[in-house]
Amino acid sequence: MSQTIKYLLPEDRIPRHWYNIQADLPRPAPPVLHPGTLQPIGPADLAPLFPMALIMQEVSTEREIEIPEPVREIYRVWRPSPLIRARRLEQVLGTPAKIFYKYEGVSPAGSHKPNTAIAQAFYNKEEGIKRLSTETGAGQWGSSLAFAGALFGLDVTVFQVRVSYDQKPYRRALMETYGARCLPSPSPETAYGRSVLETHPDHPGSLGIAISEAVEIAATRDDTKYALGSVLNHVLLHQSIIGIEAMEQMEMAGTWPDVVIGCTGGGSNFAGLAFPFIGHGLRGGPKPRMLAVEPSACPSLTRGKYAYDFGDTGHLTPLTKMHTLGSTFTPPGFHAGGLRYHGMAPLVSHLAELGLIDAVAYEQSECFAAGVLFARAEGIIPAPEANHAVKAAVEEALRCKREGKAETILFNLSGHGHFDMQAYADYSAGKLLDLQYDEKELAMALSGLPSVPAPG
Amino acid sequence: MSQTIKYLLPEDRIPRHWYNIQADLPRPAPPVLHPGTLQPIGPADLAPLFPMALIMQEVSTEREIEIPEPVREIYRVWRPSPLIRARRLEQVLGTPAKIFYKYEGVSPAGSHKPNTAIAQAFYNKEEGIKRLSTETGAGQWGSSLAFAGALFGLDVTVFQVRVSYDQKPYRRALMETYGARCLPSPSPETAYGRSVLETHPDHPGSLGIAISEAVEIAATRDDTKYALGSVLNHVLLHQSIIGIEAMEQMEMAGTWPDVVIGCTGGGSNFAGLAFPFIGHGLRGGPKPRMLAVEPSACPSLTRGKYAYDFGDTGHLTPLTKMHTLGSTFTPPGFHAGGLRYHGMAPLVSHLAELGLIDAVAYEQSECFAAGVLFARAEGIIPAPEANHAVKAAVEEALRCKREGKAETILFNLSGHGHFDMQAYADYSAGKLLDLQYDEKELAMALSGLPSVPAPG
Repeated sequence: MSQTIKYLLPEDRIPRHWYNIQADLPRPAPPVLHPGTLQPIGPADLAPLFPMALIMQEVSTEREIEIPEPVREIYRVWRPSPLIRARRLEQVLGTPAKIFYKYEGVSPAGSHKPNTAIAQAFYNKEEGIKRLSTETGAGQWGSSLAFAGALFGLDVTVFQVRVSYDQKPYRRALMETYGARCLPSPSPETAYGRSVLETHPDHPGSLGIAISEAVEIAATRDDTKYALGSVLNHVLLHQSIIGIEAMEQMEMAGTWPDVVIGCTGGGSNFAGLAFPFIGHGLRGGPKPRMLAVEPSACPSLTRGKYAYDFGDTGHLTPLTKMHTLGSTFTPPGFHAGGLRYHGMAPLVSHLAELGLIDAVAYEQSECFAAGVLFARAEGIIPAPEANHAVKAAVEEALRCKREGKAETILFNLSGHGHFDMQAYADYSAGKLLDLQYDEKELAMALSGLPSVPAPG
Repeated sequence: MSQTIKYLLPEDRIPRHWYNIQADLPRPAPPVLHPGTLQPIGPADLAPLFPMALIMQEVSTEREIEIPEPVREIYRVWRPSPLIRARRLEQVLGTPAKIFYKYEGVSPAGSHKPNTAIAQAFYNKEEGIKRLSTETGAGQWGSSLAFAGALFGLDVTVFQVRVSYDQKPYRRALMETYGARCLPSPSPETAYGRSVLETHPDHPGSLGIAISEAVEIAATRDDTKYALGSVLNHVLLHQSIIGIEAMEQMEMAGTWPDVVIGCTGGGSNFAGLAFPFIGHGLRGGPKPRMLAVEPSACPSLTRGKYAYDFGDTGHLTPLTKMHTLGSTFTPPGFHAGGLRYHGMAPLVSHLAELGLIDAVAYEQSECFAAGVLFARAEGIIPAPEANHAVKAAVEEALRCKREGKAETILFNLSGHGHFDMQAYADYSAGKLLDLQYDEKELAMALSGLPSVPAPG
């Protein structure tokens, strides 16, 4: 007798609402501050960057926010995404645990990022915006927004970190195939980019610099808004569709997770899976352990400071309270480019402070080892970012084996690795090193955090 | 009100049988001949290359052949694959036609190839085989068999055409991540490879040479069998799962195709979608037009000769009657590597001779133009091979527009293009040329076809 391994929802079970964890927080997250006045910002302060609908979502405390029909219409191409039981991985590990993964690599861009890209493009289009600017590192976010822009007829300009622009031409080709314009950052296109190039003509770029450039473009052009692929509340809100679907699918599977796992860079794929479960627990349901997994080389949750900081290097953004390594911190060039960010989503940070989320950090080589094990057992090649979640799931399954516990483990396989095969080639060739950040640089970056008086 | 666009079947609707068109043929296909005796070969002749279960499928005339449960178990990871209505593409084209596509890019290898790779690995494993050898061009088949080998614990050796081995390291990395051994062909590993290297040390390789090498390894080693990714009857049989699912999904959609489209290299993805519909028509059901789409630079169905020929360059295979450009024909190096084969599946060729299949050829640049149009409308980047099917679907939709007909068009989107972004980058840069084969070379290859007396 065969056993079900894949839990699919029909198209009409695509959720009709996103879940907003701000409705269920024991206490609200600290406010976002204006960097000049250090006072909480209002919607008007964000209006140059975002359409009003997204700004209202950013501060909303409504539990359920309706997903517009045109967004659901496009979600249908790949959603509901499958929940799959990793039976062969369980067998390889010899664990009594049940391992489930929610697979977001089925989207056209190959990751969870389109969940929010489509929503952001929709709201911008609704408010008459013609152009979107954004930044991208390895390119997962940039290609997702390019995809969304193509479907809604918006021009998309992507500032891609120069080292990725030069070394990863295929993600760029993907963005350009969708019709987006892709610029290496730092670029002569912006005042901030020019200022960087003036002193460092060969600067390899960083996510923090690229954000500054994209924000500058949006702030200075009437027909252009900015789109961010993680970190912000409205991004995490849109990603909640992952967890809402997963809850229904876990019910179909007749079990409930004891531990929920996601990798964390800016925090959105983790939050997308975890927040609906956390909210369910806060409202009286079972409380699975929540495990955020980050790279040892960029460990904002496990080594960063919970403090107000800028989101970008050019200090054009508001100040948000988050776990941060400091906005001047430059993580080493490991392969999981989507996790190379100095800060953590304010809501994820807040929940970690509240003790509702655990965090752990792993080196990239052990994550790739877990990814290869997973690929050979389950067939799907995970993205380097997702390998962090795979690694943690494997560790949890081995713990269950040692302890003789048949726990249920759920993790987010946030994307496939088809664009990241150079990393796997390096791993196979023994050339994938565990990169360390510079402790002095971290200390310096942390000491340079903006000074914000405690609220009184 | 939203309209359904994606037709999903639940996991328990994965077909339990493959469909064998040999049961419904008005007359049987010509027999496979031994190249020495020119007499029909028997199962024993194929035993060095294939496990007996596959040989029996090769010659079976049973209509339904049961899919083994362990194969269905693995199919579950990505099957049933979605049938999607391309509503935005319809709108962009302004056509009254309904366009549907069956999307096979959801498999872990990103194409339809695992449908047969999993089945072939299973039957080999069942008969105690330890190793599989195969060839690959761009790498879609090699990576699919590597994936299948990993899941069944079989060692897989892939002879990859040298020019692809050198130029496309990412597909190789994928194969190696699954644990396969990948060799550039021609290689010193085989007598045939050494003979080629002796006279041409820098030979770029070809699919025909790589097949010869893989066949030689299997024929000379007891624990090793050969696996082919297209052309053969049993491969087309396994791919029929595509069409069987699509028929059920078209019923869900409340319509039936007027035209069914697939790209053709060896013929398996086209046959996989088309044969169940053709068989249904032969048994009294509606008879959609069947359209095979091939590259102008390798036009076996539209420019080849229907004749007995070898499947490989080294002439180690039996003789099959098929549309062929001659086994010595070398197609120019266009991007749809999966369509660069001199011959066409004997069953597809036979059905074309019976007038049950139409064929058309397109240049690669017009196929990429259609692929980019599709990507910007539907979000999915097609593989270069699949762009041929997209092009034909677009042409059919435009014909419907001219004729004011609301026909239903169904095509097979056989894979995604995430491994083929260099081709899209070339296209965007205006560097994608329409390559022509050498007419003299074609004439010479056709004049060198083996002489086989007509059956008397």
